[in-house]
Amino acid sequence: MKSVEEQMRIIAKGAKEIVGEEDLRNKLVRAIAENRGLTIKLGLDPSAPDIHLGHSVVLRKIRQMQDLGHRAVIVIGDFTGRIGDPTGKSKGRAALSEEQVKENAKTYTDQIFEIVDQEKTEVVFNSSWLKQLDFEEVIRLAASVTVARILERDDFTERYKNNVPIGLHEFFYPLMQAYDSVALKADIEIGGTDQTFNILMGRSLQKWMGMEAQAAVFMPILEGLDGVEKMSKSLGNYIGIHEPAEVMFKKVMEVPDSLIIRYYELVTDEHPDAVARLKEELTQGRNPRDVKYELARIVTNLYHKDEAANAEKYYKEAFMNKGIPESIPELVIDLDKDTLAGIIPKLIEEEYVKSGSEFRRILSQGGTSLNGRVLTMEELDQVLICGDVIKIGKKKFAKIIK
Amino acid sequence: MKSVEEQMRIIAKGAKEIVGEEDLRNKLVRAIAENRGLTIKLGLDPSAPDIHLGHSVVLRKIRQMQDLGHRAVIVIGDFTGRIGDPTGKSKGRAALSEEQVKENAKTYTDQIFEIVDQEKTEVVFNSSWLKQLDFEEVIRLAASVTVARILERDDFTERYKNNVPIGLHEFFYPLMQAYDSVALKADIEIGGTDQTFNILMGRSLQKWMGMEAQAAVFMPILEGLDGVEKMSKSLGNYIGIHEPAEVMFKKVMEVPDSLIIRYYELVTDEHPDAVARLKEELTQGRNPRDVKYELARIVTNLYHKDEAANAEKYYKEAFMNKGIPESIPELVIDLDKDTLAGIIPKLIEEEYVKSGSEFRRILSQGGTSLNGRVLTMEELDQVLICGDVIKIGKKKFAKIIK
Repeated sequence: MKSVEEQMRIIAKGAKEIVGEEDLRNKLVRAIAENRGLTIKLGLDPSAPDIHLGHSVVLRKIRQMQDLGHRAVIVIGDFTGRIGDPTGKSKGRAALSEEQVKENAKTYTDQIFEIVDQEKTEVVFNSSWLKQLDFEEVIRLAASVTVARILERDDFTERYKNNVPIGLHEFFYPLMQAYDSVALKADIEIGGTDQTFNILMGRSLQKWMGMEAQAAVFMPILEGLDGVEKMSKSLGNYIGIHEPAEVMFKKVMEVPDSLIIRYYELVTDEHPDAVARLKEELTQGRNPRDVKYELARIVTNLYHKDEAANAEKYYKEAFMNKGIPESIPELVIDLDKDTLAGIIPKLIEEEYVKSGSEFRRILSQGGTSLNGRVLTMEELDQVLICGDVIKIGKKKFAKIIK
Repeated sequence: MKSVEEQMRIIAKGAKEIVGEEDLRNKLVRAIAENRGLTIKLGLDPSAPDIHLGHSVVLRKIRQMQDLGHRAVIVIGDFTGRIGDPTGKSKGRAALSEEQVKENAKTYTDQIFEIVDQEKTEVVFNSSWLKQLDFEEVIRLAASVTVARILERDDFTERYKNNVPIGLHEFFYPLMQAYDSVALKADIEIGGTDQTFNILMGRSLQKWMGMEAQAAVFMPILEGLDGVEKMSKSLGNYIGIHEPAEVMFKKVMEVPDSLIIRYYELVTDEHPDAVARLKEELTQGRNPRDVKYELARIVTNLYHKDEAANAEKYYKEAFMNKGIPESIPELVIDLDKDTLAGIIPKLIEEEYVKSGSEFRRILSQGGTSLNGRVLTMEELDQVLICGDVIKIGKKKFAKIIK
């Protein structure tokens, strides 16, 4: 195992904050002495989205720690899902069957295993211990925390202040998550800064129950391609880990220069020394485009080992070697015209094509592509999303903006 | 069964408030139609005090309802006792064993059965259903109520406002009590006005669980002999149900005139019509002493059927027929001289006796009594409490005031 200091540097790379840093050092000392990896906990909601680089931040950090010799436990918070919305107010929160929960979890973990090391990861369901607790144990759990402390959680504070009802059961959600840390004897819990309250509660509950407290590693929230907002699918500023290699490469090249180092820190597994060197080079006047180009290769390689070289080649041909402007014209479309057929009038208006029939001719001849993938006539009802790049003929590109 | 209106009059006698009066009427209609008594719930803490007339208020009301054909369920709240203080802060709240709880409960229920009709009473322990609830059921229970609603309970409001910590588990105590009503399918819950919050929570939880809501009968808190403070042993302004008949008779005669009707309403089973008649007579100028004398006979009879006549005779001889003033001189003693021996200097000072040796002589000859009971030399360390009446020789009385 690597030295404590070396491990600390890798763990701290890009992290917003580590609470219990001293605890973590002690755990690492022991781990090295006993040559036994630490247990890293990651709690996940069973409602699985498509994973993008924003989600990858904590997962990559876990991967880095696994490469240091530690093991991860991914806790699927199915207990809440099993209960549904006990007030019966939310139709969307009907209780899920055990099969549904397992199925949702599988969709999600399949994606997760593209980042974390499956060999060193255990997936567990928190219902397996939470459903066993009886009222007496729940009361003991509740006694570990004061009402004032829980009301301090930002969203509760806000709702209480504004007279928005808080069901008493909601106070238990952070406690359940905290209890997961107890059940797993977690050494480290990792999460986004939005999980600060819950993860710190895990720390205090472990102490209250006479256990060693977990260290808490908080990763920042990644900004999307716009450079400002949190990366998210609904804002269209995301890079999905399943996007085609060409699209991924191209999108990384659209990352604002100001975020290049942040992306190196948060979405790659590059060593802190390498990142520090790049940072220094940028300060010394190195062209950001070159550093970003390297970033695009690294990121594409992480998710498309076999196709990364091709994607790079495609990018070079389409955007660098043939004099095609890197800033693709934007095509602003209405939300209700978001299919390929729906944007034809706009394409005529913007003089991409002379007529609908011309467009159809080019399409039928394979002269149209979406994010590098050739389109066919069967795909006229293809839904377009913000950020999609359409190529028409040999040199005309349009980027969809909604 | 008596008519709905007649039953309502008897139930309402002396009650501070009935919440769900219409519900109660409906239940009574059904009870009469089906000739099946309603279930009256009374929740009790397992820490058993000696019962006095203050405690008797709710118990007598239950007795009156039992006499109307209903049945009582006394819920011993042993679940909390079984848990103890889960924060471990209070030494006095260590977890009680099942035997201890049962023993405590027996001491208490033995006294209760001197008032309520044992034949129509079931004693149950709420641990028998509460300990069975699992986490999922607890969450559903918690979902029935909002944090804001629970924080409205006076003591919680006060503590939250003053930053006095409230353990989250404490929020469950009213919910447990409420759940007892669900488990018992209670039709009526009775309690003091200090139980308003908890009892109304039982009502709302039953509704939330799709059951018919219990009616809530709130009895007022009885003032003690001083006419102002709540009757309590520590204030010395009480009449215990186990006090000797003579003492009880005498103490009732000390009730302030302004409370005579209130005592008729709250500590006797007299019919509302009879009470109304007495009230009218007092307004018309009837001597309160006569009405109170009748009250003393009724109360003494309730608790000392066989000795009541003697107590009355004793009272007449000692205080009425022999020219002894009814207002006994008060002997104000210090708290640290509260034994029989301790007050001797005071007795000399107030000229009850010439010397300590005279007092001892009278005592040894059986010429001294405490609340009508002859004292012996062995009782020099007898502790005196406020309200005790000491008789020295044939005609000297002193009432102890601290």
